[in-house]
Amino acid sequence: MTTFANTVLDNLEIELPSWAFGNSGTRFKVFGTPGTPRDVREKIADAAMVHRMTGLAPRVALHIPWDRVDDYAALSRYAEDQGVALGTINSNTFQDDDYKFGSLTHTDKVVRQKAIDHHLDCIEVMNQTGSRDLKVWLADGTNYPGQGDIRGRQDRLAESLATIYQHVGTDQRLVLEYKFFEPAMYMTDVPDWGTSYAHVSALGERAKVCLDTGHHAPGTNIEFIVAQLLRLGKLGSFDFNSRFYADDDLIVGAADPFQLFRIMFEVIRGGGLSDDSDVALMLDQCHNVEAKIPGQIRSVLNVEEMTARALLVDGEALAVAQDAGDVLGANEIVMDAFYTDVRPMLAERRAERGLPERPMIAFRDSGYRETIEAERAGGVQSSWGA
Amino acid sequence: MTTFANTVLDNLEIELPSWAFGNSGTRFKVFGTPGTPRDVREKIADAAMVHRMTGLAPRVALHIPWDRVDDYAALSRYAEDQGVALGTINSNTFQDDDYKFGSLTHTDKVVRQKAIDHHLDCIEVMNQTGSRDLKVWLADGTNYPGQGDIRGRQDRLAESLATIYQHVGTDQRLVLEYKFFEPAMYMTDVPDWGTSYAHVSALGERAKVCLDTGHHAPGTNIEFIVAQLLRLGKLGSFDFNSRFYADDDLIVGAADPFQLFRIMFEVIRGGGLSDDSDVALMLDQCHNVEAKIPGQIRSVLNVEEMTARALLVDGEALAVAQDAGDVLGANEIVMDAFYTDVRPMLAERRAERGLPERPMIAFRDSGYRETIEAERAGGVQSSWGA
Amino acid sequence: MTTFANTVLDNLEIELPSWAFGNSGTRFKVFGTPGTPRDVREKIADAAMVHRMTGLAPRVALHIPWDRVDDYAALSRYAEDQGVALGTINSNTFQDDDYKFGSLTHTDKVVRQKAIDHHLDCIEVMNQTGSRDLKVWLADGTNYPGQGDIRGRQDRLAESLATIYQHVGTDQRLVLEYKFFEPAMYMTDVPDWGTSYAHVSALGERAKVCLDTGHHAPGTNIEFIVAQLLRLGKLGSFDFNSRFYADDDLIVGAADPFQLFRIMFEVIRGGGLSDDSDVALMLDQCHNVEAKIPGQIRSVLNVEEMTARALLVDGEALAVAQDAGDVLGANEIVMDAFYTDVRPMLAERRAERGLPERPMIAFRDSGYRETIEAERAGGVQSSWGA
Amino acid sequence: MTTFANTVLDNLEIELPSWAFGNSGTRFKVFGTPGTPRDVREKIADAAMVHRMTGLAPRVALHIPWDRVDDYAALSRYAEDQGVALGTINSNTFQDDDYKFGSLTHTDKVVRQKAIDHHLDCIEVMNQTGSRDLKVWLADGTNYPGQGDIRGRQDRLAESLATIYQHVGTDQRLVLEYKFFEPAMYMTDVPDWGTSYAHVSALGERAKVCLDTGHHAPGTNIEFIVAQLLRLGKLGSFDFNSRFYADDDLIVGAADPFQLFRIMFEVIRGGGLSDDSDVALMLDQCHNVEAKIPGQIRSVLNVEEMTARALLVDGEALAVAQDAGDVLGANEIVMDAFYTDVRPMLAERRAERGLPERPMIAFRDSGYRETIEAERAGGVQSSWGA
Repeated sequence: MTTFANTVLDNLEIELPSWAFGNSGTRFKVFGTPGTPRDVREKIADAAMVHRMTGLAPRVALHIPWDRVDDYAALSRYAEDQGVALGTINSNTFQDDDYKFGSLTHTDKVVRQKAIDHHLDCIEVMNQTGSRDLKVWLADGTNYPGQGDIRGRQDRLAESLATIYQHVGTDQRLVLEYKFFEPAMYMTDVPDWGTSYAHVSALGERAKVCLDTGHHAPGTNIEFIVAQLLRLGKLGSFDFNSRFYADDDLIVGAADPFQLFRIMFEVIRGGGLSDDSDVALMLDQCHNVEAKIPGQIRSVLNVEEMTARALLVDGEALAVAQDAGDVLGANEIVMDAFYTDVRPMLAERRAERGLPERPMIAFRDSGYRETIEAERAGGVQSSWGA
Repeated sequence: MTTFANTVLDNLEIELPSWAFGNSGTRFKVFGTPGTPRDVREKIADAAMVHRMTGLAPRVALHIPWDRVDDYAALSRYAEDQGVALGTINSNTFQDDDYKFGSLTHTDKVVRQKAIDHHLDCIEVMNQTGSRDLKVWLADGTNYPGQGDIRGRQDRLAESLATIYQHVGTDQRLVLEYKFFEPAMYMTDVPDWGTSYAHVSALGERAKVCLDTGHHAPGTNIEFIVAQLLRLGKLGSFDFNSRFYADDDLIVGAADPFQLFRIMFEVIRGGGLSDDSDVALMLDQCHNVEAKIPGQIRSVLNVEEMTARALLVDGEALAVAQDAGDVLGANEIVMDAFYTDVRPMLAERRAERGLPERPMIAFRDSGYRETIEAERAGGVQSSWGA
Repeated sequence: MTTFANTVLDNLEIELPSWAFGNSGTRFKVFGTPGTPRDVREKIADAAMVHRMTGLAPRVALHIPWDRVDDYAALSRYAEDQGVALGTINSNTFQDDDYKFGSLTHTDKVVRQKAIDHHLDCIEVMNQTGSRDLKVWLADGTNYPGQGDIRGRQDRLAESLATIYQHVGTDQRLVLEYKFFEPAMYMTDVPDWGTSYAHVSALGERAKVCLDTGHHAPGTNIEFIVAQLLRLGKLGSFDFNSRFYADDDLIVGAADPFQLFRIMFEVIRGGGLSDDSDVALMLDQCHNVEAKIPGQIRSVLNVEEMTARALLVDGEALAVAQDAGDVLGANEIVMDAFYTDVRPMLAERRAERGLPERPMIAFRDSGYRETIEAERAGGVQSSWGA
Repeated sequence: MTTFANTVLDNLEIELPSWAFGNSGTRFKVFGTPGTPRDVREKIADAAMVHRMTGLAPRVALHIPWDRVDDYAALSRYAEDQGVALGTINSNTFQDDDYKFGSLTHTDKVVRQKAIDHHLDCIEVMNQTGSRDLKVWLADGTNYPGQGDIRGRQDRLAESLATIYQHVGTDQRLVLEYKFFEPAMYMTDVPDWGTSYAHVSALGERAKVCLDTGHHAPGTNIEFIVAQLLRLGKLGSFDFNSRFYADDDLIVGAADPFQLFRIMFEVIRGGGLSDDSDVALMLDQCHNVEAKIPGQIRSVLNVEEMTARALLVDGEALAVAQDAGDVLGANEIVMDAFYTDVRPMLAERRAERGLPERPMIAFRDSGYRETIEAERAGGVQSSWGA
């Protein structure tokens, strides 16, 4: 481990989404599980448990209105008591009936204003929680050719975003997420990084792109986009997860660990894990069939492991091989790092820092699951509320 | 129009899915609409309206348990009174908590038996409704490598299907649907036509493949599969819909009308619309944001239109061009048929048969929508119940 | 036809690529055909024949070095004598052994300078031919992770493009094409519209994006990109072709005519066919198995037909339906235009303008093919020279 | 290492394709490299070097006509002298002008017979070389809808294959490869495993499917197909390579090592590496930009490494976790195996067997490359001859 590598690993922080602890599923079925949180405090408690097991997850992102409370200052204190802080605020303009045909892009000024106001509410929440980032993911789009005016929707989107951006504080940021498709099936209003980049560039310095690793067309080279956005100074944050097909929202690194390794390599290469970086790493996943808390533990460990492997790449030797046109040699340097088993080293690091060497087993042995299953009887389990 | 073409159009029948009249959506949101049926009778009434407007939809497929009633004979009579018949019975082994890790493929013999028994119940419904087809679509699959034993699941699937097949009557059929992915995100137990074909071939003569046009990998040449399954004598039925990305379940023909034309051309080419064909044409769609009854009207009209265009292909001239290696000439013969506007001719046919010339407008002017919106106040609107 | 529609159709011009008249194929085989041009003059003669048959193709794009001649002024005069003009100049930095590991992105300054110089040579050709556009398509990329430094390659690309752009005349433009993959199999240096947009935005006003309709990931909504680039003022030109799988380079409109219709609708919607538009329409296709000249005739007719259909969309009614959330109504307005058979109207227009009513048949009956097959015996047929 | 694991690794044999040592490329460019073989003997010599470095590659597959010689018995002896044997014979019906519109599927009986006769010639070669397998990959397909009659082509294909199969000896096999697309761009006559399976099932016991890992639609779960074909007793052989986009033909394991691991796990699970298995492992790759001999060395090492990792999966513990519905536990057992660095153990095994511990370095230090670069001056370097 180089000094830089040690520093990167020491500084690594992965934000957890509150909604990962609630139930999720597909349009066919949402399965419940014993112990699932009934409110945001129980979600935060679970997130804090992930942090206690790993030391990697000091913040919890909220989703408004799913996590709406009366007193956000009190919620912040509750989180602090649990050992974590509140993080990114995620807006939601896809579950109100008014948004059936769009939110920030809607043809009806009244609906647009409602969606804008929701974002201003979210900024107000940020002011109370001390959150830095407002994350905007829009479900806006259309299912049939002709249903909407693509160009008009873009123009309205730009206008709505500009209005919201005026209220983003000088220490705050707006990060705009893009997604290839779903729930819209024909045209999505922010479908690719180019569109997000064009909008945030028009907004200003404190507007950035959010890259969800599951939101691309088949075959897309995601690490290229990472490198490009870092080069352009516009990579705001990651929503980590993994996919085999569509937006599967599986555990990050589960579908293609080598891809995650390549992504982390480009994050490091582009300065995204340097001391002065403001790139935020977050999870955005759905534990449809697996246990949720260990699912999150596994996820942050995967990010850490692939970061550690990426840090092993011998950059100087790599540059020499690249300059020499030594394709196999350059590739081998990268693969050597990927194939090196960093798990013992990371276990040792954890032990040195007073963390469980084997977080998955530590969680299993902690009795936490049995406790919440017993305590959380009754009530309505949290879910997306779709 | 040739005599054959006339006969094909006269005989064209497209079965409607009862669930198309209920609400549907995505994991993000299911939007409701006024007038949505609350029970299977109201669904049948809506389906019958589609048939009255088009003359193309004489049957309604049921989904068990969504459409479960005490007296199926009475339901059949109700349908007949409305002018339609009951059709395919669709099983459902994806919404009970027991099926979280599989149904016909489950490692637990008790769960497998429960899923088998559900299919035997469906066959009993068929016996009462006089339905010919049991359609089996399985959500079975896994989300993570290692979660299930691919091979063992196939073996158990084969065994379960064999047990069910023993109960399929001599005038009945089992059609096995395949799907590329969703809800399973890593491995689906019946993911492609090859797997369905292998299983139904092992079962016997009365087992066939169901081809859902939205259930393929990107770029798949669907008309090839149609031609192949007809050649192998194993094309049982279609689930029509259309897609841009995944299993979008949009109106058939909406995303790529030329593809629907090519599919219908191969259906005709392979004898699938001949007098002695037992290929069933069905819709399986989700009207998430558009009106449902006119959505179904548009769908059956699209199938009819593309069938009519496909019937215009000059087969003899085509064969000559193909034999001559005249690529552009052969292609032009096909495109000429596709580009010919058959809508006036089909309107005329409808008029001759006492049907509305313009079904979409006739429905709009019928007052049916206003009536059901008024009558269907209160109660719980039907949906997938996910 | 509205006055606007008439004007659009009157003004429609589609540039032909000289290389479409030479042989092309796949890595498996390039088939030759009798009559294939041996040099650029014969290619221009063939292109001129397409224009005589259709009135739609007044310009021919050149590819350097495939079409290199000593005297470009003489070549321009030759083209004019044939009834066409010389158009876009296409650079080629993918066939020299020096470019094995990149051209404008190469780590070796000497190779980069060679590639830059090639573009300056192309600008000099433009000065002699009076061409407006320098089209840059780069094959640069890597086949294996680690082979190249993604970020460093972007930085060098930006620098190389800036150097070239300094030499682009005030009446000239640089259009930068992007491509999803091929010939690079892991990472392509300009893989998507976002990358091309970021680079041309950095260059200046006279740098624009070239959109090749075959250069996208599966499922990409191309008309969205068209609308977005027009909105951003950065759509420079089209390379038209069509695809089922990868960069298949089939005849435009052959694979998905409805997609071409939607693209042309957005071009019109965004002002791309207005009098003051500088968007260039070009073909870029490979007639691997079909006859080349009629292949080009079919292509320009397809663009004209889909443009004519797109012009039929009732924009006012569409806006009303969109504002009302009438999904099916809005879609039907668009589909009505698409399904209307414009071929008789276009044939009539051709007749009025002294052009053959049926260009494909007119070409067949012209004897041109027989003439060139006889005349072009011997010599080496043109191809990509790969 | 279990005894079984040791046996599997001891028995592991990967056949090399002679053409991997010649030049290859894309339709844009084929780059040459010093030392490239000029004939089949030089290819065999290079292949033998791969075997000397790794002990994993005892056979070389030939491609007819690329590797045609007068005396195959002499060629076999030459190979034996080099330390390897001749393996699978690959037919080629895609480079003769007669095959422009098909070979075994052609409408012209004369062309079909020519293609059949070519396969009979290949069988005759097999008789002389003692090869077991005739591998049939067909480029047959069409580029445009209407160009060919899908159904008729299938029927002719079946007939042609049946004729060839009659000549396959009792100790020989016919393996039929499928491919999603390329060189055909609209319809490929053997596009998927289902089609290959249907044909080889109709032929008989000695006809099997060849699975090329690069020949699938985006997102296809290849290990599922492996498991299915092994279950059906019809997996004949692998063509190993890897891909990010299309049929990229990259080094196996280079694009997604975890996928290769999963594939090898299913091969083992289904008995494909058991003593009585007749599944053949072959490479089929293109070293377009990387050095060819070390490219092959890297490839066979990748297969060995992923096989070794797959052998580490604790099958009993996995079954327990699967039965318990312990998704994360089951997945972790699989990932533990994948993440274990087997390279030191494999190096030790090589040393024990008198092989170079580090084959890539051993090759570099061997001087072989320098020798062939010096010796193979002049002549025409082998390539696909497209």
